[in-house]
Amino acid sequence: MEKIYVKDLKEYLDKEITFSGFVDSIRDKKWVMFVILKDSTGKVQMTIEKSEEKNAKLLEIMANITVDSTVKVKGKLVMNEKVKLGQMEIIPEVIEITSLADNLPYDYNNLEGVNIDTRLDYRWLDLRNEKNMLVRQIESTMVMGMRSFLYENDFTEIHTPKLIGAASESGSEVFEVKYFDRKAYLAQSPQFYKQMAMAAGLSKIFEVAPAFRAENSNTYRHATEFTSFDLEFSYIDSYEDVMNMEEDLLIAGLTKVKELYGEKIKEVFNKEVIIPTKPFPRIKLQDLYQELNTRYNYHIPEEDIGDLNAEAEKLTSQYALEEYGHEFIFITGFAATKRAFYHMRDENGELQGYDLIWRGTEITTGAQREHRYEEIIKNAKEKGLGDDVKFYLEFFKYGCPPHGGFAIGVDRLTMLLLGLHSIKETEFLFRGPNRLNP
Amino acid sequence: MEKIYVKDLKEYLDKEITFSGFVDSIRDKKWVMFVILKDSTGKVQMTIEKSEEKNAKLLEIMANITVDSTVKVKGKLVMNEKVKLGQMEIIPEVIEITSLADNLPYDYNNLEGVNIDTRLDYRWLDLRNEKNMLVRQIESTMVMGMRSFLYENDFTEIHTPKLIGAASESGSEVFEVKYFDRKAYLAQSPQFYKQMAMAAGLSKIFEVAPAFRAENSNTYRHATEFTSFDLEFSYIDSYEDVMNMEEDLLIAGLTKVKELYGEKIKEVFNKEVIIPTKPFPRIKLQDLYQELNTRYNYHIPEEDIGDLNAEAEKLTSQYALEEYGHEFIFITGFAATKRAFYHMRDENGELQGYDLIWRGTEITTGAQREHRYEEIIKNAKEKGLGDDVKFYLEFFKYGCPPHGGFAIGVDRLTMLLLGLHSIKETEFLFRGPNRLNP
Repeated sequence: MEKIYVKDLKEYLDKEITFSGFVDSIRDKKWVMFVILKDSTGKVQMTIEKSEEKNAKLLEIMANITVDSTVKVKGKLVMNEKVKLGQMEIIPEVIEITSLADNLPYDYNNLEGVNIDTRLDYRWLDLRNEKNMLVRQIESTMVMGMRSFLYENDFTEIHTPKLIGAASESGSEVFEVKYFDRKAYLAQSPQFYKQMAMAAGLSKIFEVAPAFRAENSNTYRHATEFTSFDLEFSYIDSYEDVMNMEEDLLIAGLTKVKELYGEKIKEVFNKEVIIPTKPFPRIKLQDLYQELNTRYNYHIPEEDIGDLNAEAEKLTSQYALEEYGHEFIFITGFAATKRAFYHMRDENGELQGYDLIWRGTEITTGAQREHRYEEIIKNAKEKGLGDDVKFYLEFFKYGCPPHGGFAIGVDRLTMLLLGLHSIKETEFLFRGPNRLNP
Repeated sequence: MEKIYVKDLKEYLDKEITFSGFVDSIRDKKWVMFVILKDSTGKVQMTIEKSEEKNAKLLEIMANITVDSTVKVKGKLVMNEKVKLGQMEIIPEVIEITSLADNLPYDYNNLEGVNIDTRLDYRWLDLRNEKNMLVRQIESTMVMGMRSFLYENDFTEIHTPKLIGAASESGSEVFEVKYFDRKAYLAQSPQFYKQMAMAAGLSKIFEVAPAFRAENSNTYRHATEFTSFDLEFSYIDSYEDVMNMEEDLLIAGLTKVKELYGEKIKEVFNKEVIIPTKPFPRIKLQDLYQELNTRYNYHIPEEDIGDLNAEAEKLTSQYALEEYGHEFIFITGFAATKRAFYHMRDENGELQGYDLIWRGTEITTGAQREHRYEEIIKNAKEKGLGDDVKFYLEFFKYGCPPHGGFAIGVDRLTMLLLGLHSIKETEFLFRGPNRLNP
């Protein structure tokens, strides 16, 4: 029999139903026992009158019930205007306790003051918190909205290997795997394989998959494993096409989220879901430096010249809001030395890529890629890359159309969307240098 | 400017267009040069008349063109009934060679006799083969169809960690990862975390993600990394609910595939996409043994009693076709000793799970899971599992609704759908004990 969810209960008023869920709370009064039940869509009251003889057996069953146990209840769903929760209640005839909960290590309904590590140790309890469950449902909706847009536009979803034979792509650290009698590594990104798909002529592809970074950093936005939404497509004229594609993709995702969860997000997270207008503002790095300087007296430090840093990203968002009334802003004109070797440069050496900043944080690096065999070899050499990228360079030897793409960190996107403070409470199950459990 | 694809060309007849693609073939005649261009959706002819003076420059550009180079052509798309390819041709005015292809190591249009390892060494060329490209597009469509069904039914997509702290789930081998100053392992399946989501109250979840198996087997259906379509949902009454869900899911996927690629699959793969009827036939293992015995004189070997093996699976499909005219068949009644400890058993010790066989091969093991804390501890002990599963057992201590689920290997599904002979030619990029490249 199919489970009836709280969100659909009103269709069953005055009917005999079976309802299953968790026990949210119990108010055991002298004459009546109120039990609030919940599932992933909401809460409903079950009422047991103690004076009624036929309820004796039910009360016996419920005598040792604990909060967070699960039950399966057969009974009648009736209207009752006095009940705050949807003006209805279940009058049970049969109750089965399907699991009995032990004393909880903390109250997940009141997480203030609970240490984040304790919360993560019991992540499955932490996720029972209404807000945390919503994070999961909303992230799923955001990804669904973006995927649907790509399906409608003839993109092919691919699944690239995470086990790779060579260690490198960029400077950052990779995890080493014991692979039978040799070593393998975990992919930091599907970049090389997305481009392999372009060389194969697949034209338009995307992938949503885990990516791994062996960085020993403990910040609010770093994780050793995260979910990456990656996209690549061929036959572009410039990285402008890539930026346009990303605008459409994000608008599609945010539109879906606003449609299904806009009100809930306002209510629970106190955040407005704003559908951005097109085109998103765009500014060159040199002009941005000037603006940050003039407006906020901010000077980019020597070591970050040609790039941004966390503080500059925050101010850039402030600038975008003040100048354009826009939450998003594209930055172009980064130094080639500050970006990976596969980003295309034009004949003047100017990088054909961009960063996208949203709500104070960079969410994407995108670019037209270098598809010309001679040029990509030159770029790799310039960065001192050798044997590790040799297999990748071969992709461009037998013809490859001009192409570009980008990646969006799904967890980071969700964090910014809902105003969460850390990726630790955003991921389904966080992984960091000191955390591999549960 | 947005790329015009071959499939949409007829909308541009008699118009000036820009077309980009690969060079498929060149026929250089005395008076005319025919160049067949292609993209991921089809082929189109470009015609250069040599007698026309204005074409001198174009012919010069095309003098050294090679097959598989990529070009960007500006010209007029005109009708020409003599042209076999869609009765139209492009008369170019401007041609730009966007990449020049070197001599190809083999002819991907004629793969007969080409060693599979050579093919995989140059997988990006292998994928240019029409059939191989279709495999990718059809797999993507199958997954899209299944996902859409789940979205419509309020499933939440989750992303569980692939880096795990403990090695075990079942007997098979796991890959070890060097994780800073300790060891981590790669998840063989998201099983434990799917169930964690159930304990968290998420009700209905799915995930499409890589899974890793450190098995040193070289068969047509094994890979060290593969894509797993995993699903789990709560508040079920029995594993019958799980089988029903899987029926609907597969029907949704196959319906989408038939709609978009049914004709193409008949033409290129000589396979019929059959939308299965509900319910799929179901048979108990003991009865099946009897049938295989009577019909095909097949006796299950001693070591496989309580389970099936590859040969028995093949015959089981034959039986399903003969007896029910059905391509799918559910088998129930496996021995608990032959299945993982998290499968539920009833009060008589009977396993509450099933296998699903399609076209001679097992594609799924599904079950109601053991959600009762005392029982799951007992089961784990019985299988000799200790500290490695301790974290998992805790998921059931604080209440957990009855639930079940299953996993489908996406690559295996695609292999059977299209009648491919090996997972090596089914995966985007195969990974096996001896293969980590490209």
